[in-house]
Amino acid sequence: MSQPSARPWVRVIHGPNLNLLGAREPEIYGSRSLDALNTSLRELAAQLDVELDLRQSNHEGQIIDWVQECRRVASQRSVGLIINPAGYTHTSVAIQDAIRGVSIPVIEVHLSNIYGREALRHSSVTGVACAGVIMGFGFDSYLLALKHLAAELTR
Amino acid sequence: MSQPSARPWVRVIHGPNLNLLGAREPEIYGSRSLDALNTSLRELAAQLDVELDLRQSNHEGQIIDWVQECRRVASQRSVGLIINPAGYTHTSVAIQDAIRGVSIPVIEVHLSNIYGREALRHSSVTGVACAGVIMGFGFDSYLLALKHLAAELTR
Amino acid sequence: MSQPSARPWVRVIHGPNLNLLGAREPEIYGSRSLDALNTSLRELAAQLDVELDLRQSNHEGQIIDWVQECRRVASQRSVGLIINPAGYTHTSVAIQDAIRGVSIPVIEVHLSNIYGREALRHSSVTGVACAGVIMGFGFDSYLLALKHLAAELTR
Amino acid sequence: MSQPSARPWVRVIHGPNLNLLGAREPEIYGSRSLDALNTSLRELAAQLDVELDLRQSNHEGQIIDWVQECRRVASQRSVGLIINPAGYTHTSVAIQDAIRGVSIPVIEVHLSNIYGREALRHSSVTGVACAGVIMGFGFDSYLLALKHLAAELTR
Amino acid sequence: MSQPSARPWVRVIHGPNLNLLGAREPEIYGSRSLDALNTSLRELAAQLDVELDLRQSNHEGQIIDWVQECRRVASQRSVGLIINPAGYTHTSVAIQDAIRGVSIPVIEVHLSNIYGREALRHSSVTGVACAGVIMGFGFDSYLLALKHLAAELTR
Amino acid sequence: MSQPSARPWVRVIHGPNLNLLGAREPEIYGSRSLDALNTSLRELAAQLDVELDLRQSNHEGQIIDWVQECRRVASQRSVGLIINPAGYTHTSVAIQDAIRGVSIPVIEVHLSNIYGREALRHSSVTGVACAGVIMGFGFDSYLLALKHLAAELTR
Amino acid sequence: MSQPSARPWVRVIHGPNLNLLGAREPEIYGSRSLDALNTSLRELAAQLDVELDLRQSNHEGQIIDWVQECRRVASQRSVGLIINPAGYTHTSVAIQDAIRGVSIPVIEVHLSNIYGREALRHSSVTGVACAGVIMGFGFDSYLLALKHLAAELTR
Amino acid sequence: MSQPSARPWVRVIHGPNLNLLGAREPEIYGSRSLDALNTSLRELAAQLDVELDLRQSNHEGQIIDWVQECRRVASQRSVGLIINPAGYTHTSVAIQDAIRGVSIPVIEVHLSNIYGREALRHSSVTGVACAGVIMGFGFDSYLLALKHLAAELTR
Amino acid sequence: MSQPSARPWVRVIHGPNLNLLGAREPEIYGSRSLDALNTSLRELAAQLDVELDLRQSNHEGQIIDWVQECRRVASQRSVGLIINPAGYTHTSVAIQDAIRGVSIPVIEVHLSNIYGREALRHSSVTGVACAGVIMGFGFDSYLLALKHLAAELTR
Amino acid sequence: MSQPSARPWVRVIHGPNLNLLGAREPEIYGSRSLDALNTSLRELAAQLDVELDLRQSNHEGQIIDWVQECRRVASQRSVGLIINPAGYTHTSVAIQDAIRGVSIPVIEVHLSNIYGREALRHSSVTGVACAGVIMGFGFDSYLLALKHLAAELTR
Amino acid sequence: MSQPSARPWVRVIHGPNLNLLGAREPEIYGSRSLDALNTSLRELAAQLDVELDLRQSNHEGQIIDWVQECRRVASQRSVGLIINPAGYTHTSVAIQDAIRGVSIPVIEVHLSNIYGREALRHSSVTGVACAGVIMGFGFDSYLLALKHLAAELTR
Amino acid sequence: MSQPSARPWVRVIHGPNLNLLGAREPEIYGSRSLDALNTSLRELAAQLDVELDLRQSNHEGQIIDWVQECRRVASQRSVGLIINPAGYTHTSVAIQDAIRGVSIPVIEVHLSNIYGREALRHSSVTGVACAGVIMGFGFDSYLLALKHLAAELTR
Repeated sequence: MSQPSARPWVRVIHGPNLNLLGAREPEIYGSRSLDALNTSLRELAAQLDVELDLRQSNHEGQIIDWVQECRRVASQRSVGLIINPAGYTHTSVAIQDAIRGVSIPVIEVHLSNIYGREALRHSSVTGVACAGVIMGFGFDSYLLALKHLAAELTR
Repeated sequence: MSQPSARPWVRVIHGPNLNLLGAREPEIYGSRSLDALNTSLRELAAQLDVELDLRQSNHEGQIIDWVQECRRVASQRSVGLIINPAGYTHTSVAIQDAIRGVSIPVIEVHLSNIYGREALRHSSVTGVACAGVIMGFGFDSYLLALKHLAAELTR
Repeated sequence: MSQPSARPWVRVIHGPNLNLLGAREPEIYGSRSLDALNTSLRELAAQLDVELDLRQSNHEGQIIDWVQECRRVASQRSVGLIINPAGYTHTSVAIQDAIRGVSIPVIEVHLSNIYGREALRHSSVTGVACAGVIMGFGFDSYLLALKHLAAELTR
Repeated sequence: MSQPSARPWVRVIHGPNLNLLGAREPEIYGSRSLDALNTSLRELAAQLDVELDLRQSNHEGQIIDWVQECRRVASQRSVGLIINPAGYTHTSVAIQDAIRGVSIPVIEVHLSNIYGREALRHSSVTGVACAGVIMGFGFDSYLLALKHLAAELTR
Repeated sequence: MSQPSARPWVRVIHGPNLNLLGAREPEIYGSRSLDALNTSLRELAAQLDVELDLRQSNHEGQIIDWVQECRRVASQRSVGLIINPAGYTHTSVAIQDAIRGVSIPVIEVHLSNIYGREALRHSSVTGVACAGVIMGFGFDSYLLALKHLAAELTR
Repeated sequence: MSQPSARPWVRVIHGPNLNLLGAREPEIYGSRSLDALNTSLRELAAQLDVELDLRQSNHEGQIIDWVQECRRVASQRSVGLIINPAGYTHTSVAIQDAIRGVSIPVIEVHLSNIYGREALRHSSVTGVACAGVIMGFGFDSYLLALKHLAAELTR
Repeated sequence: MSQPSARPWVRVIHGPNLNLLGAREPEIYGSRSLDALNTSLRELAAQLDVELDLRQSNHEGQIIDWVQECRRVASQRSVGLIINPAGYTHTSVAIQDAIRGVSIPVIEVHLSNIYGREALRHSSVTGVACAGVIMGFGFDSYLLALKHLAAELTR
Repeated sequence: MSQPSARPWVRVIHGPNLNLLGAREPEIYGSRSLDALNTSLRELAAQLDVELDLRQSNHEGQIIDWVQECRRVASQRSVGLIINPAGYTHTSVAIQDAIRGVSIPVIEVHLSNIYGREALRHSSVTGVACAGVIMGFGFDSYLLALKHLAAELTR
Repeated sequence: MSQPSARPWVRVIHGPNLNLLGAREPEIYGSRSLDALNTSLRELAAQLDVELDLRQSNHEGQIIDWVQECRRVASQRSVGLIINPAGYTHTSVAIQDAIRGVSIPVIEVHLSNIYGREALRHSSVTGVACAGVIMGFGFDSYLLALKHLAAELTR
Repeated sequence: MSQPSARPWVRVIHGPNLNLLGAREPEIYGSRSLDALNTSLRELAAQLDVELDLRQSNHEGQIIDWVQECRRVASQRSVGLIINPAGYTHTSVAIQDAIRGVSIPVIEVHLSNIYGREALRHSSVTGVACAGVIMGFGFDSYLLALKHLAAELTR
Repeated sequence: MSQPSARPWVRVIHGPNLNLLGAREPEIYGSRSLDALNTSLRELAAQLDVELDLRQSNHEGQIIDWVQECRRVASQRSVGLIINPAGYTHTSVAIQDAIRGVSIPVIEVHLSNIYGREALRHSSVTGVACAGVIMGFGFDSYLLALKHLAAELTR
Repeated sequence: MSQPSARPWVRVIHGPNLNLLGAREPEIYGSRSLDALNTSLRELAAQLDVELDLRQSNHEGQIIDWVQECRRVASQRSVGLIINPAGYTHTSVAIQDAIRGVSIPVIEVHLSNIYGREALRHSSVTGVACAGVIMGFGFDSYLLALKHLAAELTR
């Protein structure tokens, strides 16, 4: 599906309200900021020799656009996607459809364990379409996903 | 409600992920592209002497804006709307409200028969506010809707 | 599946209480009679060069028999079915099975938009097995279905 | 309840769409016809010295009539009933009531295992009133039922 | 709606399995037969100077036909309908639609109190469209309905 | 249970808000007052030679007290109860228990057909414990109940 | 949390379709426009010596951005938020999260009483995270909220 | 409906357990007493030139009686009602009916935001019949309601 | 919370219909009367040196009043409450709130095992707020509760 | 899958509490013991020339082990499994998975008709993975299953 | 059922995770160990002259075995069972069946009040089959049960 | 909580049917065996300098025992747990309680993405009590969990 030229390329999409990371409900999401998370991701990507593309949006439509763009890149090189749909996780059929429409490995991540929260947050409409889901490890949810993708994309 | 001056004007709104038509899940949605669909619609519109306005967006808010704009046009001429809300079909109260807010004939269309898919996709929150719904005929869902609107708007 | 000898043959099955069309709840179903509807269908069929077979029954079993008979005709010529299961739409697994058992294009139609009515009428057990569904256009729901079938059967 | 004069008498009622057996959805129901099934039943009945009465209908009311008729016969000899209510299994309170109204052993049979199909088909409204249920063995569902009834009626 | 010429005319429709009255589940339905019930109804009708038309069927479609026929009679004289839909009470949208389609007073009756039975039998899909419901009085459920209709039709 | 000395005694309990009858939501409950209803009941009772005891309360506990009192009277004469629990119909397990605790015939009545109203009002927790239910006939719901009780208590 | 320098600052966010106020479904939302509402709000704010920031968007993501921005302002002065999430009220976990992420008083308002509308509109996913909710008073829902906020912010 | 003679009259009904205000669960309801609340209401009423009638009861029936009494007063002067049904909010169809039966403006208030509490407390059976609902502002829920009513009643 | 002066004081509240104990549904509740139960409680209280206050009411509001009164007594001595809310167990949020509002040990008791009865009676809205629940032991449910309270209050 | 050397081998697994057969709830399960059932099975197996392996356990894990062991035997000869999961029928995803993991014919049996029992017992989580289900025939449920397996394994 | 020779014999079964008592979630279950609980039980048994048999297992099957063993003992002496099924309370139909299969008094106990915990823990599948349930009293839940059993077994 | 002496110790518990890995449903679980998985885990553990303890059981009770044992080890060194509860994931409150009872980091893993399977498998009763969940990566689900634990335990 993808042509394994050059380094693998991994997009990371942070969903709504993740721009407030560290400031918002720190007892659930921790006290480190999105910048700190992105820095950790970049450091790991450098080690793994993966090119990283980092995005954040509060807009469902923008997130769908960014998921779709991965298709274009995937026609030229090896591509993976890490997505934290946050509040859209539990309702967005449209993001589910977008993920279904790209033929690349997609991993859904959550900072907290959604099974340990209120019932409204147990289901994942978007996760239905992903290869796998990692939840509950804080920043490490993303880092584990990136390690897995890097290995898979260079296999 | 509308002044029947000049040719009828019909807006077609393609919802999220329909820009990937042909490439995404072709076993469900077929292998022809959105451009092909739009070409078919334009050809039919020419035959029916209807002015066509074609839009696609992955953004729920953008779709609401476009639905609302039909009000303005409808103050001057005969207007109809064909909408495929795709993934927003099953959850968007806001698009339902937007359709409720325009006093023009609105037809909801789906390429596939949503009753034949998973339970999540059987309901239509947006269709509640439409005049009619056509589903399951691929491109023809749109073309049938356009034929019906053209006839109704020139009646 | 069918041998395209001669003109296509389309059966139309009107389900329970449609014999009262025009007299019953005209604010929902309109004030024109079933005869008027059948006349419209015959006129369109003549234009489209399609042979039409029109039926109405209040009996679920009779409707199943009529659906099944299409198999026999389909062994000799090109056959389609338009069905309005009316009150049986929401509960009849047996009609669903009958539709599943014929290998011809079947279109479910409704005069009114069932999503716009009470919750009991939102689901379609029979529509699950159809190729497509058209609802909300009054007589035109049937006429659009016939146009679509005629085109498909002569393709 | 019944007077054990002469050979036992067993009615078999095949519900809606079973007349299409072999032709309809063979991946679920197999490729042998209803005639073949009836022939197997007749051969086994001859071996077991049971008189057989075979019926098929797509009409719920007809099936109720046939269930009720067993009462009359049961006043004179030993009677059993094998019923496959097919699509009516999941909704017919009226067939349940009819079975409740006859004081003879009634066995519900299904060719396929209804627990292995979609959720809609897991329940059995009619089976609530039967002595037992056998499902999933194709023709053998009927044959096992007949063997059991023959033994029970001559006990 | 009706022309009050001559005596009022009341149709009574006994639904599925009521032909077995007295023989079937007497602990629920009592031990007197349908003939006895009809005799009681005829006697009361004579006293009330009402013409009676008594029907029983196990067929949902037949019941719908009979409900619809009341329309024709109602164009010439004062008409009422007493219906015991029995097992169809809880599921038949089609009988509900038929009742909706006649513009005469319709009373639903049940021999037993359906609220006192299993949950499946608490709802009434058909009763939704009736003027009133009387349940739990055995034969008197019918007789009370007849008295009420006679008074209403001659008012 | 009761000693058939003297005339039968029938208590009628009007539940909450029935004191406003005629003034409150007349499109549902009619425009005649509770006094008018009680007058009709008294007139009919006189004809039937039944002693009547009429009560109204908005208090669930008061209604339970009044139901229970029937036990004491029933030790000396023939007693029946007509109850319209109004808003308590759908939730009061305590009134259900009170009715269960008296061994006399109890009839639940409603002015309107509760199956024809919003879903919240379809169930009857109190009716579960009654002999029968009459609904939808306005004042006649009570009068039919009284006729039935009078006949039953003097049988 | 906020530094009470200068006048309090209150943002008002009007959600989807509120730009059509007065034109859309006036029997529910009244016939006055959003401009009229904003004018009323500005007049009251002037009286109360509150700085007002008025916004309207059909885009869920835009609304989340605007909710988040209040944090920044709140670091320098006393800030409150009035939000009418309209169609997003019933489904948006993402707006709930945004409200959770700002440490200022947030009041949800609705022009109509959502408990008095269809079941779909009874719940409030966004209201879960607000301090309070005011619904059913038309323009006054906003004005009452503003009065309360002004008092609270200057306390 | 009301004759605007003299000052407007507003009844305030505090439902069950509100007599314990300040002592009971202060983390939810605050630490000020019902007397303090009533004093605040009286002070505001004096400013607004509104006559106030303050009541508290733990009895559902008493609350219904008090709601109904407003009708009598309303025949002579301008009347409004503020009601906090407390624990009866979520189940009382009888109070809903009582509110439906008075033709005056009724406002439901809650000290806490019921959407922010356990699921059992999210719905409002009584609020369905009110003009508006104000929740979450402690004493101010009542005061805002009184301000609104005073303005409306003198309009 | 309580001052351990003098003997502990325990209130026992018997809910609706318990005044009929022994007479009502003896197969569920036994054949001994409420007087017998109270005598047993008094005898045990004497042994345990506990002052007993026994109450019965069919009125939800009265029960709430009695629960609240315990607060006053508890300011002067050691207080406990045994409550059998009977039919109010499954629905009364108001009694739950009253129990929440007293800071004394409260034990809910039932004569029968509510898990062994119909589904409607499995839940306990009031028990949510109690320290413990004892059910299924007839009179002993109360006596065990009293023994436990006596020990706890003198600890 | 299996090598048809030698006689077929059929394992029978009796689930929890079946060791008490005959002693436990004889009105449901009959009065004959598990030994008697096993004797009947052995006699029939001898007639059918099938080797029988009989097991009973109350331990879910033990049952899973025994299901899995069939795989090993199946590599050498023709193997079938008859399983009555008893109380584990309705909840055990783990036994379902075990059945899914063996590629041999598996028949689920029940002594009683589970559709005729309480709602909790209508579903079969384990039956979802079986070839067929036989219920309601007492010992004959097993014997019919054995006959079917013997025939199938020697086909 | 049991022969009252010698002292009564009472088995106590502690279900899964109770071996960790005191160490696990002490805010719910208290800080004393299972040994301490067993010591308390033994002391009380000595006072009551009851022989005690104490067991703990995390294995559902083991618990069923132990319940069943009570039958054997019960054939020779007076036997009772106290069971805390812990995590198996809410799902184990198999333990329910085992309890149903022994004809001795069985009391279910819980240390905490399960109605006061999360919804998942409100139901009791096992308690359905017990004589009574005691919950919420910590160790005293067991001790009260033992006192009750001792009295009942020596009655 | 743990004393960081020596190397960290990680237990891995493979739940029911995982001993059949590679042989059972390879389209879901892959074709490599449990031995292969354990070998991968051991190799990684060696690299990470972690002591590994590998277990598999089909017995729920055994799994609980093994979870509990981690407590003992944790009193002496740094301990983590990786658990794949397989079929017990969706129902086992007892395993949830066991996990709650150990104060060590616990990670739930699944080979497949349970959100992508049938609805029955979407929920995780056991995952509610874990720190995090990793699903959908085949063997890598375990390996990622081990990497995370190793890092966390040596932090």
